[in-house]
Amino acid sequence: MSVKKAGVLGATGSVGQRFILLLANHPDFEIAALGASSRSAGKKYIDAVTWKQTELLPEIAEDIIVSECTAENFADCDIVFSGLDADYAGSIEKAFVEAGLAVVSNAKNYRREVDVPLVVPIVNPEHLLVIEKKIEIAKAAGEKKPGFIICISNCSTAGLVAPLKPLVDSFGPLDALTTTTLQAISGAGFSPGVSGIDVLDNIVPYIGGEEDKMEWETKKILGGVNAEGTEFKPLTDDELKVSAQCNRVAVSDGHTECISFRFAKRPAPSVEEVKQVLRDYVCDASKLGCHSAPKQAIHVLEAQDRPQPRLDRNRDRGYGVSVGRIRADPVLDFKMVVLSHNTIIGAAGSGILIAEILKSKNMI
Amino acid sequence: MSVKKAGVLGATGSVGQRFILLLANHPDFEIAALGASSRSAGKKYIDAVTWKQTELLPEIAEDIIVSECTAENFADCDIVFSGLDADYAGSIEKAFVEAGLAVVSNAKNYRREVDVPLVVPIVNPEHLLVIEKKIEIAKAAGEKKPGFIICISNCSTAGLVAPLKPLVDSFGPLDALTTTTLQAISGAGFSPGVSGIDVLDNIVPYIGGEEDKMEWETKKILGGVNAEGTEFKPLTDDELKVSAQCNRVAVSDGHTECISFRFAKRPAPSVEEVKQVLRDYVCDASKLGCHSAPKQAIHVLEAQDRPQPRLDRNRDRGYGVSVGRIRADPVLDFKMVVLSHNTIIGAAGSGILIAEILKSKNMI
Amino acid sequence: MSVKKAGVLGATGSVGQRFILLLANHPDFEIAALGASSRSAGKKYIDAVTWKQTELLPEIAEDIIVSECTAENFADCDIVFSGLDADYAGSIEKAFVEAGLAVVSNAKNYRREVDVPLVVPIVNPEHLLVIEKKIEIAKAAGEKKPGFIICISNCSTAGLVAPLKPLVDSFGPLDALTTTTLQAISGAGFSPGVSGIDVLDNIVPYIGGEEDKMEWETKKILGGVNAEGTEFKPLTDDELKVSAQCNRVAVSDGHTECISFRFAKRPAPSVEEVKQVLRDYVCDASKLGCHSAPKQAIHVLEAQDRPQPRLDRNRDRGYGVSVGRIRADPVLDFKMVVLSHNTIIGAAGSGILIAEILKSKNMI
Amino acid sequence: MSVKKAGVLGATGSVGQRFILLLANHPDFEIAALGASSRSAGKKYIDAVTWKQTELLPEIAEDIIVSECTAENFADCDIVFSGLDADYAGSIEKAFVEAGLAVVSNAKNYRREVDVPLVVPIVNPEHLLVIEKKIEIAKAAGEKKPGFIICISNCSTAGLVAPLKPLVDSFGPLDALTTTTLQAISGAGFSPGVSGIDVLDNIVPYIGGEEDKMEWETKKILGGVNAEGTEFKPLTDDELKVSAQCNRVAVSDGHTECISFRFAKRPAPSVEEVKQVLRDYVCDASKLGCHSAPKQAIHVLEAQDRPQPRLDRNRDRGYGVSVGRIRADPVLDFKMVVLSHNTIIGAAGSGILIAEILKSKNMI
Repeated sequence: MSVKKAGVLGATGSVGQRFILLLANHPDFEIAALGASSRSAGKKYIDAVTWKQTELLPEIAEDIIVSECTAENFADCDIVFSGLDADYAGSIEKAFVEAGLAVVSNAKNYRREVDVPLVVPIVNPEHLLVIEKKIEIAKAAGEKKPGFIICISNCSTAGLVAPLKPLVDSFGPLDALTTTTLQAISGAGFSPGVSGIDVLDNIVPYIGGEEDKMEWETKKILGGVNAEGTEFKPLTDDELKVSAQCNRVAVSDGHTECISFRFAKRPAPSVEEVKQVLRDYVCDASKLGCHSAPKQAIHVLEAQDRPQPRLDRNRDRGYGVSVGRIRADPVLDFKMVVLSHNTIIGAAGSGILIAEILKSKNMI
Repeated sequence: MSVKKAGVLGATGSVGQRFILLLANHPDFEIAALGASSRSAGKKYIDAVTWKQTELLPEIAEDIIVSECTAENFADCDIVFSGLDADYAGSIEKAFVEAGLAVVSNAKNYRREVDVPLVVPIVNPEHLLVIEKKIEIAKAAGEKKPGFIICISNCSTAGLVAPLKPLVDSFGPLDALTTTTLQAISGAGFSPGVSGIDVLDNIVPYIGGEEDKMEWETKKILGGVNAEGTEFKPLTDDELKVSAQCNRVAVSDGHTECISFRFAKRPAPSVEEVKQVLRDYVCDASKLGCHSAPKQAIHVLEAQDRPQPRLDRNRDRGYGVSVGRIRADPVLDFKMVVLSHNTIIGAAGSGILIAEILKSKNMI
Repeated sequence: MSVKKAGVLGATGSVGQRFILLLANHPDFEIAALGASSRSAGKKYIDAVTWKQTELLPEIAEDIIVSECTAENFADCDIVFSGLDADYAGSIEKAFVEAGLAVVSNAKNYRREVDVPLVVPIVNPEHLLVIEKKIEIAKAAGEKKPGFIICISNCSTAGLVAPLKPLVDSFGPLDALTTTTLQAISGAGFSPGVSGIDVLDNIVPYIGGEEDKMEWETKKILGGVNAEGTEFKPLTDDELKVSAQCNRVAVSDGHTECISFRFAKRPAPSVEEVKQVLRDYVCDASKLGCHSAPKQAIHVLEAQDRPQPRLDRNRDRGYGVSVGRIRADPVLDFKMVVLSHNTIIGAAGSGILIAEILKSKNMI
Repeated sequence: MSVKKAGVLGATGSVGQRFILLLANHPDFEIAALGASSRSAGKKYIDAVTWKQTELLPEIAEDIIVSECTAENFADCDIVFSGLDADYAGSIEKAFVEAGLAVVSNAKNYRREVDVPLVVPIVNPEHLLVIEKKIEIAKAAGEKKPGFIICISNCSTAGLVAPLKPLVDSFGPLDALTTTTLQAISGAGFSPGVSGIDVLDNIVPYIGGEEDKMEWETKKILGGVNAEGTEFKPLTDDELKVSAQCNRVAVSDGHTECISFRFAKRPAPSVEEVKQVLRDYVCDASKLGCHSAPKQAIHVLEAQDRPQPRLDRNRDRGYGVSVGRIRADPVLDFKMVVLSHNTIIGAAGSGILIAEILKSKNMI
């Protein structure tokens, strides 16, 4: 099996560091290029980065010379992972796509484009078909394989939709959904990220842009595609009402969400039926045998005080989402607690798994 | 103006310690008796207590000899504050009431009795009328003044109802209400209270009994009284649906709640109308000139990232509740963030303010 | 008694915010001018500042228009408190002194000048005599009152020398001293200050420049003055060996230090003699009746697990230093734990108390 | 290679849980018996334990029936690991040894016995020779193989001696040593362990018995054995002065120690010589090829702000000790920061590595 050449944009940032950790010793990919700002370009990676991960910097990445984020520098990459800040991602990623490169991005810039898949790989890999279609069309037209971009969802969105998608597949659409998040600080990066004084004996009940992202992205991920398979049709506000309240808390990794939701169809399923669907869920990435796919995509926990970030965030190396306290809700139908690893399933990890799916489908 | 004699039950516990802090140098009360378990009885308070407050143990309390919690030992108290654990509160408080004593209790045991007021003093002091009625009836019958008990609400309930009561008074009843709490560890006491490993880089998404208390108590506090003024008529589940999700977080003091709610009447008021009612609210305790009453019972904060526990919990010495991020909710009518000081307005502080109201109404 | 006009430089920073809190409602001072960068100049203080204190922004400061840090703008100030960053303090403070202003600075820039007092006001107010001398000389020469600068010590130095000075006064000089600090994050300011990820489930065993400051400043503060009373004579490395190891920990306010020390003279005093000297210590500021002076400058705690930052940092409003676990040390003579409030006695609070002393001595 | 049968005493406690994690999938050992209190005996392990590790409970241990801690129940174990509380360890471990069992204990009870090795396996495995001698003597006398006990050192002692031993081997004995510790809460267990309120925005500058343990155990570990090889000869107070100051901080795992020390011989080595010896150190367990032995026992870090618990505690799976900031000390010769994983090298992990050494030497 061939090993694909991978590039990482924003390689010195917190998402970029995670991409590098996950690519080191990966059977499908090898790091071919690392891109960062001009301040870092020309330096060895180990000299350019302030490494802040709890796992050590992989030796394999230490001596790679960081380059600037131009399409030329990544021309021979089969896949490019972008951990760029939104301030830079827009123009750089556009240039990469125009140069025919395949980009998987953690930035928010292109998530709402009608022809860009917004993918949580354990949830809606079928949205990648829009890209497959695009490749087919080009092929049929005798054109060379086009560049494309696939967006990773916002971190807190990923945890939210993970248990909802199998439920919708089994019991039909939701019509109302609320989530209150308790989000980890790693989601805010490291330079400087969340200030210590803001999370020591404190909560910050606001994360800029986050609630809007959750409310919008959920409707695209749980929504469909047009008849031609070329454009996404997010759910409308009439079809699904979503309300998010986001908080930053003193947790390093792992977003906890207290969610409640109502199905459109009456009668609603029972608590036990909901649990059973979640327990039985097998994601496509597992069926495809992808290297990083979780053995169990959704872990249904029965202990009354779980999931907890410190104890549950690393299930299936962070690719498994934990759900606990599934119970009837006096206002909507059900309420439950969802925990997801924000830098794995909510960011870099999902990027890697998307690329594994692309490879298994010969899209890269 | 006469100074009333006050007793404290459970004086060595965390709620008892707060009672003592608030009673020291109080113009209306003097500490006359401190009660604790037989293990502490006979010792000086300073030797019996493991003081864990950030303010120093008041000198005035240091040398008081702790006694056992019998009605005889508190016979000359005008008012008795109970910080007893629920395991002991039931029988002890009953005996005190039967002995003709006036008890203000933080324990949960009698909160659901039909003739026991469940009071957040900045919210529903009018519920004390049931006791006033009881005293009048005894007086008319030529009996001596009866003992009685008044219950302080659960800490997270207090913060929830504080901004809702003025809204209901202005815009009519709610029909749906959700709250997700991020609760401080001081609410769990100190011996041992919440374990460090449970809140270091962690969230515990469960607090035993808390959700049920919030869902039930809210309906009593926002509910009414029968025609005779002798029994409480909590709202029914049909009248108001309440859903609570409770979490323990790494905060010392101050419960944060992300709430959303819907009014029964259409059309709902505007966001600005909601804010104005909250800004204009003056609680009865302030009108009565009670010593501890907040200058401003509800603080409406406009900064997008407030309230925060570290910065806002001490407004009006913990008697002021902060409300921020008031905005339309896609699922119900409104959502907002409420912060209340759990050991002040949510526990001992409310007990003291209740007693101040009792005194100003000549009920003690 | 006249009220002196006070200016604050660096008014929007964390030290500046503390100066403003302490000046509001101060009987000796009124805020006459607030200085900050050109970005803030011209704005109302409330609009220029990101207020991060746990006490609310004093109303009295809200509407003051922030000005740039030029001597002209502070010309009518009797005293100027500087919370400037070291990057700016050098030239600005120099200009202020040359303009004849009296400056009390928290910056490090002039601490090592031979004619600048480095003062912890509960420890070595006698070092202010060098300024008194300077004023006298000018007066004798018929010159107008000269400008001058007085430096507040580094925050961790303040806690270290507080208990040592009375011991040296009683038992003679030390010849060796070690301290390992556990320092609060407020010492690093707020913008951004210490990153959350650095202190969540973590220790950073390094604070840039801190160890050198502690080792040097201790020798100046415990040292003397030349015969003419015009220049400081810090202790030499031969006279006193000092070794500091500094750590940043997850504490908001309050520096804990584990110290050990040896007296030059044999035999050393007993543990009880050491305790007695500390208990009996009354600082000059108390004798002068200064408004902010602690009732008790050194609190000797006997409980084996004290002092603790959360419980003891606010003794005497942060002006009292707590000392616990005084015991024999197998390597040097004694070891003990010292806790001091880093933003009060270790920064702004000491600045205010220095100014109170200056006022009581008619030096401003 | 034969797999040895292992038992775990105190299996439901925090140390016991770590033993089980380390034994699951271990090539040298299989879990044969789990012992706990009579309350747990008879239950499946999964039902008896409140699992608090960040790694999931190994499936292999879930269904093992917990037994009471009697020698009969562990009769067929080749090695027994004890995570018992000191309150129970004394009599139980004694009975096990008398029954001929080989015990490796984390309890403090027998650490000071003259014929019991106190071992940090990356530091002083040669102390196991006293047991080898004991076995030989019994063999020579035609007796059956005797039971024995080997004690794991106190957690903070382990980190302290790790870098000192190779230095003493190279540069001769120390005569003075100081350490100030910043210790993680996992060392105090979980039921309830350290209270949250004690480590939230706080430091506790006291750990019962810890300083005495560190000061005493260091002298045994760095000390020698009598001529017959049957008894330990700890260093005397005259030979080595040790002073410890112990603090509990808000860290989950990983003890940080700020240490300083002086060699007896003059001149002392240079900083670079000290670093080189530490970098070159290879522990015997590595030479023996033990499964858990660290690739690098001592990691010398050059970054000025390292080691940090969150970033460095897991080096070599917690079996590597990190040393940073090695520099000259103004009072003694050198100062440096040492970080060790308290539940691996400081507790259960060392127990497992001791057993691996015993096995490689055919002592079990």
